[in-house]
Amino acid sequence: MRIVSLGILAIPFAARPARAQLIEFSKQQLVDYSEPNPFDRLADGRPKVPDNLLRQARELSAEEIWAVLEEKGYKNQYADGFRILHPDKPMVGRAFTVQFMPMRPDVEEVAEAKAKARGMGRLHNQTAIDMLQPGDVLVVDLFGKKVGGTIVGDNLFYYVMTATKSGGMVVDGSIRDLNGISEIDMPAYFKDVDPTPIGNVMLTGINVPVRIGGATVMPGDLVVGDREGVYFIPPHLVKEVLDRADEIRVHDEWTKKKFAEGKYKSSEIYSTPKDPKLKEEYEAYLKKRLEEIRKQRAASQEK
Amino acid sequence: MRIVSLGILAIPFAARPARAQLIEFSKQQLVDYSEPNPFDRLADGRPKVPDNLLRQARELSAEEIWAVLEEKGYKNQYADGFRILHPDKPMVGRAFTVQFMPMRPDVEEVAEAKAKARGMGRLHNQTAIDMLQPGDVLVVDLFGKKVGGTIVGDNLFYYVMTATKSGGMVVDGSIRDLNGISEIDMPAYFKDVDPTPIGNVMLTGINVPVRIGGATVMPGDLVVGDREGVYFIPPHLVKEVLDRADEIRVHDEWTKKKFAEGKYKSSEIYSTPKDPKLKEEYEAYLKKRLEEIRKQRAASQEK
Amino acid sequence: MRIVSLGILAIPFAARPARAQLIEFSKQQLVDYSEPNPFDRLADGRPKVPDNLLRQARELSAEEIWAVLEEKGYKNQYADGFRILHPDKPMVGRAFTVQFMPMRPDVEEVAEAKAKARGMGRLHNQTAIDMLQPGDVLVVDLFGKKVGGTIVGDNLFYYVMTATKSGGMVVDGSIRDLNGISEIDMPAYFKDVDPTPIGNVMLTGINVPVRIGGATVMPGDLVVGDREGVYFIPPHLVKEVLDRADEIRVHDEWTKKKFAEGKYKSSEIYSTPKDPKLKEEYEAYLKKRLEEIRKQRAASQEK
Amino acid sequence: MRIVSLGILAIPFAARPARAQLIEFSKQQLVDYSEPNPFDRLADGRPKVPDNLLRQARELSAEEIWAVLEEKGYKNQYADGFRILHPDKPMVGRAFTVQFMPMRPDVEEVAEAKAKARGMGRLHNQTAIDMLQPGDVLVVDLFGKKVGGTIVGDNLFYYVMTATKSGGMVVDGSIRDLNGISEIDMPAYFKDVDPTPIGNVMLTGINVPVRIGGATVMPGDLVVGDREGVYFIPPHLVKEVLDRADEIRVHDEWTKKKFAEGKYKSSEIYSTPKDPKLKEEYEAYLKKRLEEIRKQRAASQEK
Amino acid sequence: MRIVSLGILAIPFAARPARAQLIEFSKQQLVDYSEPNPFDRLADGRPKVPDNLLRQARELSAEEIWAVLEEKGYKNQYADGFRILHPDKPMVGRAFTVQFMPMRPDVEEVAEAKAKARGMGRLHNQTAIDMLQPGDVLVVDLFGKKVGGTIVGDNLFYYVMTATKSGGMVVDGSIRDLNGISEIDMPAYFKDVDPTPIGNVMLTGINVPVRIGGATVMPGDLVVGDREGVYFIPPHLVKEVLDRADEIRVHDEWTKKKFAEGKYKSSEIYSTPKDPKLKEEYEAYLKKRLEEIRKQRAASQEK
Amino acid sequence: MRIVSLGILAIPFAARPARAQLIEFSKQQLVDYSEPNPFDRLADGRPKVPDNLLRQARELSAEEIWAVLEEKGYKNQYADGFRILHPDKPMVGRAFTVQFMPMRPDVEEVAEAKAKARGMGRLHNQTAIDMLQPGDVLVVDLFGKKVGGTIVGDNLFYYVMTATKSGGMVVDGSIRDLNGISEIDMPAYFKDVDPTPIGNVMLTGINVPVRIGGATVMPGDLVVGDREGVYFIPPHLVKEVLDRADEIRVHDEWTKKKFAEGKYKSSEIYSTPKDPKLKEEYEAYLKKRLEEIRKQRAASQEK
Repeated sequence: MRIVSLGILAIPFAARPARAQLIEFSKQQLVDYSEPNPFDRLADGRPKVPDNLLRQARELSAEEIWAVLEEKGYKNQYADGFRILHPDKPMVGRAFTVQFMPMRPDVEEVAEAKAKARGMGRLHNQTAIDMLQPGDVLVVDLFGKKVGGTIVGDNLFYYVMTATKSGGMVVDGSIRDLNGISEIDMPAYFKDVDPTPIGNVMLTGINVPVRIGGATVMPGDLVVGDREGVYFIPPHLVKEVLDRADEIRVHDEWTKKKFAEGKYKSSEIYSTPKDPKLKEEYEAYLKKRLEEIRKQRAASQEK
Repeated sequence: MRIVSLGILAIPFAARPARAQLIEFSKQQLVDYSEPNPFDRLADGRPKVPDNLLRQARELSAEEIWAVLEEKGYKNQYADGFRILHPDKPMVGRAFTVQFMPMRPDVEEVAEAKAKARGMGRLHNQTAIDMLQPGDVLVVDLFGKKVGGTIVGDNLFYYVMTATKSGGMVVDGSIRDLNGISEIDMPAYFKDVDPTPIGNVMLTGINVPVRIGGATVMPGDLVVGDREGVYFIPPHLVKEVLDRADEIRVHDEWTKKKFAEGKYKSSEIYSTPKDPKLKEEYEAYLKKRLEEIRKQRAASQEK
Repeated sequence: MRIVSLGILAIPFAARPARAQLIEFSKQQLVDYSEPNPFDRLADGRPKVPDNLLRQARELSAEEIWAVLEEKGYKNQYADGFRILHPDKPMVGRAFTVQFMPMRPDVEEVAEAKAKARGMGRLHNQTAIDMLQPGDVLVVDLFGKKVGGTIVGDNLFYYVMTATKSGGMVVDGSIRDLNGISEIDMPAYFKDVDPTPIGNVMLTGINVPVRIGGATVMPGDLVVGDREGVYFIPPHLVKEVLDRADEIRVHDEWTKKKFAEGKYKSSEIYSTPKDPKLKEEYEAYLKKRLEEIRKQRAASQEK
Repeated sequence: MRIVSLGILAIPFAARPARAQLIEFSKQQLVDYSEPNPFDRLADGRPKVPDNLLRQARELSAEEIWAVLEEKGYKNQYADGFRILHPDKPMVGRAFTVQFMPMRPDVEEVAEAKAKARGMGRLHNQTAIDMLQPGDVLVVDLFGKKVGGTIVGDNLFYYVMTATKSGGMVVDGSIRDLNGISEIDMPAYFKDVDPTPIGNVMLTGINVPVRIGGATVMPGDLVVGDREGVYFIPPHLVKEVLDRADEIRVHDEWTKKKFAEGKYKSSEIYSTPKDPKLKEEYEAYLKKRLEEIRKQRAASQEK
Repeated sequence: MRIVSLGILAIPFAARPARAQLIEFSKQQLVDYSEPNPFDRLADGRPKVPDNLLRQARELSAEEIWAVLEEKGYKNQYADGFRILHPDKPMVGRAFTVQFMPMRPDVEEVAEAKAKARGMGRLHNQTAIDMLQPGDVLVVDLFGKKVGGTIVGDNLFYYVMTATKSGGMVVDGSIRDLNGISEIDMPAYFKDVDPTPIGNVMLTGINVPVRIGGATVMPGDLVVGDREGVYFIPPHLVKEVLDRADEIRVHDEWTKKKFAEGKYKSSEIYSTPKDPKLKEEYEAYLKKRLEEIRKQRAASQEK
Repeated sequence: MRIVSLGILAIPFAARPARAQLIEFSKQQLVDYSEPNPFDRLADGRPKVPDNLLRQARELSAEEIWAVLEEKGYKNQYADGFRILHPDKPMVGRAFTVQFMPMRPDVEEVAEAKAKARGMGRLHNQTAIDMLQPGDVLVVDLFGKKVGGTIVGDNLFYYVMTATKSGGMVVDGSIRDLNGISEIDMPAYFKDVDPTPIGNVMLTGINVPVRIGGATVMPGDLVVGDREGVYFIPPHLVKEVLDRADEIRVHDEWTKKKFAEGKYKSSEIYSTPKDPKLKEEYEAYLKKRLEEIRKQRAASQEK
């Protein structure tokens, strides 16, 4: 098993967040709990899946991700049941998480007093939105709230689009202004739509671990949305997911080519060719195509 | 508080409807209960929101309407959860309401006898449909019935389209012939689709107050449907809603313009600019744009 | 077919209700639409199923009622899906109906003005409750509302119990104070329970036709609730339902007696004995028992 | 009533299927239970609705089918509530049915032993898929399973498309790889989508009677899917359905033409013209158009 | 792995069932597919879990059964979501399965003709009910049907009680006459209650494999119902389940005794005592109690 | 507004919890966020609503609590939709909260390493259960999980009963072993029941703020469960709730007494007597009864 070396992390950080939020999750905690992260980190401590991998991930589908995550024992990284704004458009980015809880005046009052004591204002949805970076996907736990659970209308949706460079948004809650939003070119996954503005809630955490459906999302996870749902991929598994996806795609390519020939029953080809000669043919094809794909990718990244 | 002057209404009317319907709501009652209506009335007593305001209302979204209705204490004028035939096409018109109840032979028999005594036939869906006027939206309370709750198939849908000049239809119930209907260019909101024709129900009221979802709809309400759901606006609030919508749209225009500049955090601009100079800039912009919009609208109406 | 003689009703009544309610259903209308009623009427025009039949109806079950109503073409007189307060206790009484709609200030304002003009107060739940008679079952259409849809708490529940002499209550909505109510000995059927008081609704009709689930309820219907759900029986069918129930019960008695003997397969006895001698035995038994039952009933009513 | 002559069927067949499946339905049984079939049969015993009727059936809508089936007493041949892959594309073909049950190791072990004893492998989804013929629609009873209830991903979906010549697929269960599948031009109806592969089930029957929603599907039924749902038409009713559909379509054509003239109320024209002259006009139109349609169809089939 | 010896079964049987049912499952198939059954068989081929084990099984709870079935890989033998007639009363017996499908006249007509040809009547619910044996639990797959999905009313429920000696009933469908049924002392699990009699279905199989919720039920399975739901235990696992349950019960007994002493944290005792001396104490206790229990059981069975 | 004095709290505490949990909420944070607490605190920092008030709170119903909480702006302290183990038995105690999230191996691995580094074991349900104190109610956020979401079976339920002195349990998740649990005399509210043990989750917080349904629960809240649902009362409002409840109960007592006299309409008495003399009578009654109640309570507490 991998050794967790908690003591020797080189990234410096303050012990307490500058913000006053009910659920605190310090930069140190974030670093600790994403310890196997192989990439750099953003200033806020989140793992930074590199931009070229983000681009590469735009071709991922839920099934390709499932293969690796299942194998590694990650059974709870997928959420579905969303309305999808632009089903044809993939969503890929780094998770920026926000958590809300039902409003409770005594707690909110203390939180405000604490914020004031640090010279800050009350936490609210724009506090979080104003922290977004290019490549982020805003992941919001609004506990499925419809009325008063609308994280953004079209104005803030537009702002999120500009701030994240069209990263995207996953909301276990709702949005408003669907008419306006549907004209903006950023992917979004949400449970419902309502004309009311957000209300009767308090923002309790920014970049804290959150639950979205049956998934546990950590800040900095690679978020991938397709026509079915959303996957939250731990950064240390991203490379393996992408490599496996290449193989799966070549496999699919070859399989369909063979099916299109009309000479074989499906079980002769799929999932593994039964005939040793066909198997050999496939393996040669796989090898050749993977080389091509990787060469091509390297080339396109050099530009 | 506004004075309700019940006695001095100039519009003449018969005390009882010519129709024999279980739930009666006479022209007098209709006039009484829509007393603050500032517009003319249709021959049947319904308020007649003018055609130019109908045209203007085609740009309304649910959020813009919410702002005024919430402020005035109208919390129950919105319904959603519909399947929407043409989500890209707004629905705007005057509510023509129809109410059904589960069939009950003793009641239906009396209703028929009463109708016969007045030289009329039994009330059914076409009785109502044949009364539709250009600019109407047919609002049908079929208590969410699916099987046998199909107000129209494609023939009558086509007729409604010609009679209302593509006004539209909101059904708390279902339709049939979706294949045929989806080729007809009229907006429609319905709960479900079923191949059965309407049956096991009785028509109990035409242009009576009805409940659609959690909303109370009065005949003559301005009906506005967008991608999210349907708003039923009392006629006396229509002007205010439209004026406010102009302001909201200019506000959104300016906000997005500022966001697009990429120089500001969202909270510096939205919902109100913090910097007094920005605020001033916004207010000047608002003033100018509102003038332009209203001039343009007046011009287009003169044609 | 039965002749509907609308002109010759002897019962005098005022043309308009003294109350000012949005949905009016005058005493005349009530009389007209319950024309086949064979019984006396209450002062408010509702059919008065006699007290001795109410007593007899306490033994009815949903299946016994179904037999006659189905045969006569009444397919929509049953509602279920309720929480039942005292499942062991039958509910029997005359329907006293109340209808609510979502609050709409313009309509409510006119209704209040109209009420004031007649020297009355605003209609609300206690207005209706204060009109209840012994033997009534309060039937409330609150369109399934949970929060703010609580027709009574334990105080008014207690009042309804005293006023109706434990008649009962059917609410397509909710109640509050379940702790207190569960100690009061009156049957009740409701959709839900909530701690909020009734609100954001307006009372729109008292003793008007209402929809409860998929059923059409007329004021004065015989309401019968058992462990499964609630039947609303048109008064003119009550006698036939009760007579048929006697036969069904004797049939069940004999069937179970035969089954208990352990000599027969179920299909030899039920639903009709195949063996002519058994059939004869059954018919003799039926005749004898019906005589006994009716004699006994007559005797108990003389006391 | 039609005489069922069970003894004189000329088609030879083996008494037991070559496959070893838990639920057996032999070729003989299939022939017996589809006895009124007026068409040839496929090699596996299924009725073979002819190709030209399949083509003609592509214009059918659910309502047109309903008319004949309802009349003949077939009330359970329709299923809806599916997600529809290509709503604009009709689905028409011969039902090829597959049934799954939850995995149970003792039963599966025996089934495997039986298969082995006959020199075959374990039954699984590809066993069925490899038996598909051009013109088939794969009808799968996966008891609504989502996770692990995915009959195909994009590879096998592609194979089904090639094998059935784009026949189609109805799954009371789910599919995976929606991204890939949505680019393949074959109609499909399914309850859900999930990234997991099929698992924790056993294939228990191929071409056995299955339940899909509230419908009973027999192998060889004509399957017709439109924007609303799916109809399963017994082969002996296909001709009548198609003929009636021609009449309905002419009727709709004429009705809409009349409505478009704007001179009539809907009830003057629909469903039957009231004016005898109009009725005559309609009947002449119907006769003429039916002749044209049938001539045209005959012509197109000769080519 | 256990050897499946399909050829050498000593029990004689006819190759085809005497009944004419759409889904046939011959006595031979039944015997084959329940091959590991260690017990005698009933005349119809079903495994006969002995009466003394049925008695012993009355103490089983769902959790005790889960332990063994999970371990053996049987993940689909549990169903819940039922209304439970007598939650305090355990249900134990041998599964007698019945399957229905939606009515389809062409299929039903052939089935009737086939039955007639064999001198029998149409299959219906009483056909199955009349075959019940003492110790049976009637397991009915009515695909969750409510209206018209009522397998029995109180008369047939009473008959099932006498025929099975209060074995019980599991219905994926509904019952009628809940008032009458609730007075009869037999356990029953059903999805719903409705006043309509069974209709619009056809009986398609008696003692065939059926699906109940997510479980696969084979005729002869040991059915155990508790307050939570129903387990269907393959006969060859019954002994192991019962033995394990004894251990679990002694373990619970000892655990609670220790907890009641109030000296230990839960984790010191449960699920395994941490202190070696406590563990020793527990093991001695387990040994002693198991001996006592088995002695006592043997004694009670001798009587 | 109340001054939040964050600096001057006298209770000493460690800055970090001894436990290693993903979501940390230190004793200091707990103290800060429950700052208006007027009572002592438990050793873990939770407010300690005194035992005598717990006893007094056993008479509270949801409606009585609603009155004060609504007035003070606490709209999100109620949760319902639970299965209630002993509906006749009130549940009262101090909230001890536990939070779970879906299992995620990378996070869990770090948490274990952190725990190990502090000489502790992995956090699991018994870790929390072993910390329970007399008077606690265990409040568990298992995000509604059914399968694998079972916080306890009957052994641990028994332990919780002994540890909390029958305090109780609220689970947004499920339990197992309902048969065994239903014999144990402790109140419990849970969403579902399942035979599986807890699994595929990780414990992420003990005594952290949690969401239960639409409510925000803070450790130390007064938990009150009645037949309807569960209220979570902030400690600083407990006294006011109890005082108001006394008044409400006297009011109910008097109201029912008046209703029982049968001389008044409900609206003459309830909610406020209209007749000034009756009002006076009521006020005298209220004063006298409150004095009696408080005297009696004081007396009973002296014993």
